[in-house]
Amino acid sequence: MTYCCGMLLRDGLVMLADTRTNAGLDNVSVFRKLRVFGKPGERVMGLASSGNLSVSQSVVSTLNEGIKNPETGEMENLLNAPTMFQAAQLIGRAIRQVHISEGRAPEAADPGFNVSFLFGGEIAGDRLRLFMIYPEGNSIECTVDTPYLQIGEHKYGKPVLDRAITYSIDLYTALKIGLISVDSTMRSNLGVGMPLDVLVVRRGAFDADLDYRIGPSEPYFRDLRESWSRALRAAQAAIPVPTYKTLLGRKLAPAILTDIDPEEAFAEAAPPSPQQAAGMPSVKSN
Amino acid sequence: MTYCCGMLLRDGLVMLADTRTNAGLDNVSVFRKLRVFGKPGERVMGLASSGNLSVSQSVVSTLNEGIKNPETGEMENLLNAPTMFQAAQLIGRAIRQVHISEGRAPEAADPGFNVSFLFGGEIAGDRLRLFMIYPEGNSIECTVDTPYLQIGEHKYGKPVLDRAITYSIDLYTALKIGLISVDSTMRSNLGVGMPLDVLVVRRGAFDADLDYRIGPSEPYFRDLRESWSRALRAAQAAIPVPTYKTLLGRKLAPAILTDIDPEEAFAEAAPPSPQQAAGMPSVKSN
Repeated sequence: MTYCCGMLLRDGLVMLADTRTNAGLDNVSVFRKLRVFGKPGERVMGLASSGNLSVSQSVVSTLNEGIKNPETGEMENLLNAPTMFQAAQLIGRAIRQVHISEGRAPEAADPGFNVSFLFGGEIAGDRLRLFMIYPEGNSIECTVDTPYLQIGEHKYGKPVLDRAITYSIDLYTALKIGLISVDSTMRSNLGVGMPLDVLVVRRGAFDADLDYRIGPSEPYFRDLRESWSRALRAAQAAIPVPTYKTLLGRKLAPAILTDIDPEEAFAEAAPPSPQQAAGMPSVKSN
Repeated sequence: MTYCCGMLLRDGLVMLADTRTNAGLDNVSVFRKLRVFGKPGERVMGLASSGNLSVSQSVVSTLNEGIKNPETGEMENLLNAPTMFQAAQLIGRAIRQVHISEGRAPEAADPGFNVSFLFGGEIAGDRLRLFMIYPEGNSIECTVDTPYLQIGEHKYGKPVLDRAITYSIDLYTALKIGLISVDSTMRSNLGVGMPLDVLVVRRGAFDADLDYRIGPSEPYFRDLRESWSRALRAAQAAIPVPTYKTLLGRKLAPAILTDIDPEEAFAEAAPPSPQQAAGMPSVKSN
């Protein structure tokens, strides 16, 4: 399993990736999933991968060797792609080339050939962009409405992003929220683990603002995990317990296993009565 | 989609279920998924279902009609089962009976036949128990180490349970945390929706302490959702932004798309230097 997240913000780009790979629970390793590359002053790019490690490494090796353009004969790679979109398309072509070299049909839903990429960055003359590239080689692009994309185990860490990430937040606040998102994921899925690789790119800088590996004993992240746990406990404790009162003396019908009776269903559709709103026991018979 | 959660605690049992069913995004309905039944003073049970609605309704109808015991000839149902374990086994038999009546093999991984149940409650003479029953009819039982079970869309709402639910917490605090868990799930998955059905059973009461439907405009739950959002924003804002300093002047190698170099990997495995711990820029060349 894997968790990678990319955020496209007003001030720039933030990418995070864990490093745990596993072939079963009994074969766990550390592999870099977030690769950073570019030419300072001209382009900077981050490529994060999830899915089958053999496939993602083959795609990266294919991109490194370059793909021959059938029309011009030129070897195309990510460092000479004229725009981010054409670079994303090149990654798609590399995925399809690996499909073919492994004798698989990319159209088929082949569970062995699962690979996805987050690809973000900026090339001089183009705008800062972030793409998610699918196993079939097609892609979607991140926009301001939902300024983040995720690949891998995305569910555990999504609620905090949904609540906190907006296009206009500061880059390092976004990195902080991303780290909270990774923390939530690591707590619930053993397939996602330390160390973490992070990339911060400031719009127009054409270089990494931060390209860093967070190790297991790194003090900021350790403090963040503890602070967040403490804050969640405090937040939860500050909410009062439900005021729904005990419906004492209610007689359980011997066979209400069947669906709710229509009368009750109708009553539930109505707004709560003043008694209910005040937390008083409601007169409920079933 | 569905989200149901059951918690087995020192003081009793809490169960929650949403009510949204869908056949595609364009066909959404409300169906009760948490059914409460029993004989006051003797037994109380909650049965929550997820998966194919046709299958779960057929299983419930089969349980209502009773299943003939081939040895005694007696019609067995949940209201005459001698123990919770035998009641859980009866539900498993009902699932297998529906499999057979629909001409499907329960062993086969048949995506159309996905149904799971949470089944909790207490029968006089037996202890309070909570089971998760799988599509194959087998079950697992909840224990003190992880005092909750989930079915359906379990991932979004799991982090808050992992952090906050312990065996010894108060029943209505557990209900509150369960509602936060449902809230997180509803925010991220449109297949989970209001109203919610909740059941609270106090150990040894053999009746429901609370058997309630929370409607969309219910004031406590609306306040809980707002308070939780506000508290999460405050918690996030209270954590300082990362102190990792900008690695300015770093020259990006033209092709570091390939894996990290061994020297850097070795450096990362070591504990952070005093400079790193103090948030100073580290001397990092690649």
